[in-house]
This record gives sequence, C-alpha cells and structure tokens, in this order.
Amino acid sequence: MNVTFADIEQAASRLKGVANETPVHTSRTVDALCGASVFFKCENFQRVGAFKFRGAYNALSQFTPEQRKRGVLTFSSGNHAQAIALAGKLLEIPRLIVMPNDAPAVKLAATRGYGAEVILYDKRKQTREELAAAIAKERGMTIIPPYDHPHIVAGQGTAALELCRAHELDVILAPCGGGGLLSGTAIAAKGISAAIRVVGVEPTLADDATRSFKTGKLCTVHNPETIADGARTPSLGKLTFELVRKNVDDMVTVSEEQIIAAMFFLWERMKLVVEPTGAVAYAALHSGALRFPSRRVGIILSGGNVDFAAIKPLMP
Amino acid sequence: MNVTFADIEQAASRLKGVANETPVHTSRTVDALCGASVFFKCENFQRVGAFKFRGAYNALSQFTPEQRKRGVLTFSSGNHAQAIALAGKLLEIPRLIVMPNDAPAVKLAATRGYGAEVILYDKRKQTREELAAAIAKERGMTIIPPYDHPHIVAGQGTAALELCRAHELDVILAPCGGGGLLSGTAIAAKGISAAIRVVGVEPTLADDATRSFKTGKLCTVHNPETIADGARTPSLGKLTFELVRKNVDDMVTVSEEQIIAAMFFLWERMKLVVEPTGAVAYAALHSGALRFPSRRVGIILSGGNVDFAAIKPLMP
Repeated sequence: MNVTFADIEQAASRLKGVANETPVHTSRTVDALCGASVFFKCENFQRVGAFKFRGAYNALSQFTPEQRKRGVLTFSSGNHAQAIALAGKLLEIPRLIVMPNDAPAVKLAATRGYGAEVILYDKRKQTREELAAAIAKERGMTIIPPYDHPHIVAGQGTAALELCRAHELDVILAPCGGGGLLSGTAIAAKGISAAIRVVGVEPTLADDATRSFKTGKLCTVHNPETIADGARTPSLGKLTFELVRKNVDDMVTVSEEQIIAAMFFLWERMKLVVEPTGAVAYAALHSGALRFPSRRVGIILSGGNVDFAAIKPLMP
Repeated sequence: MNVTFADIEQAASRLKGVANETPVHTSRTVDALCGASVFFKCENFQRVGAFKFRGAYNALSQFTPEQRKRGVLTFSSGNHAQAIALAGKLLEIPRLIVMPNDAPAVKLAATRGYGAEVILYDKRKQTREELAAAIAKERGMTIIPPYDHPHIVAGQGTAALELCRAHELDVILAPCGGGGLLSGTAIAAKGISAAIRVVGVEPTLADDATRSFKTGKLCTVHNPETIADGARTPSLGKLTFELVRKNVDDMVTVSEEQIIAAMFFLWERMKLVVEPTGAVAYAALHSGALRFPSRRVGIILSGGNVDFAAIKPLMP
C-alpha cells in the first residue's frame, strides 16, 4: 500500500468546491520573532474546524453504492468524528461514530449536530478498534479509521498541496498524531519540490512517533496526558509509519508549556482561534526549538475546535 | 466640513499596499441561524488588530513637512492610539499619545511597542481633550482625534468600501463609538449603492449615539461601564453626528450579555478572535434584535485586541 503525489492531486479534485481552500496568514511580528518568513495554513477555517474534513470526504466519496447504503463507522477522539459525520451527511451515507467518553464536549456536540449516531466507550476498559470491528461486522458497515488509510492520508495532504502551490517554501512543519496529516503533508511537499524539508512535531508527552521515527521501531504511548488531544493517539499506524519514515526529514517534540504559549500567542497576536493540537507545529518555531534563519517556513495550523471550559484555567 | 465618497476612494489609494485588504469570512452555521447571507469583514486582521489603522494612516499621510517634523498628538482608549503609533512610525512622525490610566494592558503595551510616547491621565480628574490641547500647544504638535476628523472618517470608510465592492449587499451593520467607523461605512456603502441600508449598533449602556440619532440632539453618556471599550466614547463628534444623521438609516442597541454571547460565538464557531467592540454589530443579528430574512448582510468586525485577563472570567 502506498500513497503518491498523484493520489493527493486526485483528492484535491474530489474536494474542489466542497472543502474550503483555506487562507494562508502571515505576520510581521512572527517573522521578526522567528527571523524567517512564516506562512500559516489556516485549517482552523476548514469545514468542521479542522483539516480532518479533507481525508474524510476523500475517503467517503470513493465508496461503492453498496458501501454507501450500509454506511460508515469510525472511531475518533474528536475532529475525525465530526469530519466523517459531515462528509457522510453531504454524501447521504449513514454514519456511526465510536468516541471515548472523555472526548471534549464541543466535539461530541458537533458530531451529534451533524446527525451521526454516537456510541461512547471507556478507554480503560475497551480498545476502540475492537469495539468498532464488532459493530462494523454486525451491521456490514465500512470502517474508515482516523489516519491509517490511504484515502485519509491523500485527503490530508491536500492542505500542504494548496500551501506549497501558493507559496514557495524551504521547510514545512506539521503536527503529528496518528501520522495521517504529517505523511500526507510530506508526500505533497516532496511532490512539489524534493528540496522542501518536512519536519513533524509532537508533544513530548506523546512522543511515540518521534521515537518510532528515530529508532525505526513502532513505539507506543498509551493515553498520554497531553493537552493536544489530537496527538493522544497511541502510535503511528502501519501505513503512516511507513510513509513517515520514507518521506519525513525529521521529527521533534515540544513541551505542554510551549504548546500553550504558542496557542495563546496565535490567539492574541494573530487573532486566530487554534486548538492545542493546532498550535503544536508552530510551538517548535515559537519556542526556538527549531530555527530556520531567513528561510520560508510553512506551518499547518491543523484545527480550531477549542474546548473553552478546559482551556480557561490555562489562559494567561 | 463634509466627507464624500471620493474622499474614501482617495483614502483607499493612500492605504494601498500599506493597510491590509482584510478578508471576508462567511459561515454556513451563521447563515442558517440568521436566515440570511452574512459577510464578515475581518478588521481583526487589520494592522494593529483593528480598523483604526485605516483612518490614522490616511490622516498622517496628508501632513505637511512642517507637521511631520513637529509630530502628532492624540488621545484614545486604545486602538486609535496603536494606530497613530504605528502609522507615525511608518511615516517617521514623532507621536505622543494621551491614554486613560485604566486602558486595557494589551493596548497600552502595544502602543508603547510601536515606539510612541504615552502620557496617562485620570478620567475622573481631567478631560483628555483639555490635556491634549495644552500639550499640543506647548509642543506645536497636530492633534488627530480618534473620530471627529474628516481624514479619519474617510480612512475608516475604506473597510466598507472593500466589503461592498467584493460582495453585493442589502444591509451593512457597523458598531458605533464616536461614529468615525459608522459614518465612513455609511458614506462608502451609499456611494456604492443608495439602496444599501446602513444600521449602527451600540451597547445599551453607551447608547448616546442612538439617542442622538433618534432625537436629533447630541446626547452624552459619561464613562459608560460597557465591556465594549471602543464604544465608551461620551458622544458622537460634531462632524460624525452630522454625517451619521445624514447617511445612516437606523441605530439599535445591544445588551452586554448579547455582546458577550456574540463574541464567544465568533471565537468558537468562526475561529475568529474579536474584541467585545468587534462583536457589537454582529450581536444585533446574533441575538435576533435585528432580522433581515433572505438578505445579504455585511458586518464589520471592527477589531481583535482582546485583553484576555479581563475576558477570562466571562468565558462560558
């Protein structure tokens, strides 16, 4: 199984007129602070408030008539759930979402708001994969997992495709949870120019992908306590691990404090509401962990679905 | 003294390549909620985080060489101060800002950050106009007040000019403090099409302009306790009162609760950081106080300079 640049271009055609071609924001303040020209791809302005809509719609739009009738099932801590819920609604496909019972309230409400059936599970008692497999078998539904699927990866890559086509870049930074966005980003960027350096960024508390990347062995972190809930995935998938190893140049981690500081900076100075995971890639640059003097740096701001009740105590 | 559509067009020429041509955002959720097509002009993405940069730069760029040398003096509760500070920096004009000692910390810091000299005063003991006049006389500086000046009005009108040129509108809503933005908006909109209805929106706690508009007599509210600090101006100016009466179709007020609800809705659902004053115009629509079924409605989101410390206790 592989994902190619052509797959991403085809995904972009499917998404045309359905997904938002999100804006790219820049800031004189950021450029002065980082000593680079920084281009923020604002996936917080994507439908459902995150890049996840791209992969979900790309996957569901390739269903056969039989699959469409039986429906789609997925498991997700949040944004992928909303993405499948909305994409399925647009394509008139029944959809069932398995969500952890501690998922952010705003994401749970939004998923139900898009008309999806939701089943909650207890992370300490079951794995979502087992539960989903059992239900899918019973109902004949197709499982579209949140990241380890070629159509998901190709869809997520369209954000970087748009960014790299709009702005010539030297470097691109993307956050990493399950690796769908990161691998799609890398394939898109390298397809535009092999010279673009691609770096994945992960919370230190959920550094499974970084360790997997550095050791060549798939590492796991169970239920990491990072505020970046989109990066709480236990490990890369089978496919995304392979794609990340093949296409990504480096991986780094950022602390919780660095993520929170970067997030509120984006709120306060750039007037962009981003969720913690959405600020992870920029946190590497903002904190000085990564420096690219005088380079042109693309940053994927992956989403903006903030659980304000959870964030409030952390506000400066 | 008057301000014409041609003045606004000329201001737009002066601002070209200096001010940001801010984006217009839309939302399917908002359209469904309001039963209208709503176009948000995002002045939170303007330089200094608010529309005020437009008027300030338009005014300062018309200074004579002698005026440039002597410098500019202004008084402002916040965004105008930053706007004069930055515009003066770009044009290499010395600048002195008289600010109330209870101005939001973020605005005070930003003003000083742009290299302006700041003098604080106590609102209970002095009027800013008197203090400013005394200093201006002593130093030979030119006063550019925050709203009651034709070059300020013309500059502020360029936001609506861009909005109305990009989208055919039936109605346009703007917040009202001293009336600079509102009168500029009205002149721009009517210049594009006399059929565009222009409505000003004010906090109920600072309803001086609404009462002035309805009674034809200039009314005053001293130090109103509204959270919308951009609308804490005591009254319309001499010029702006005349322009508002002549060009604005109606004025309405919104409660503090309606402003706060609209603001957090814009944060949460549209991922836009707007300050309380920035949410005032939308609050009229969001609350249902104004309804424009099936119409195309423009909203000026006037700014995004939020004092997070002050806002935090109000977060849902």
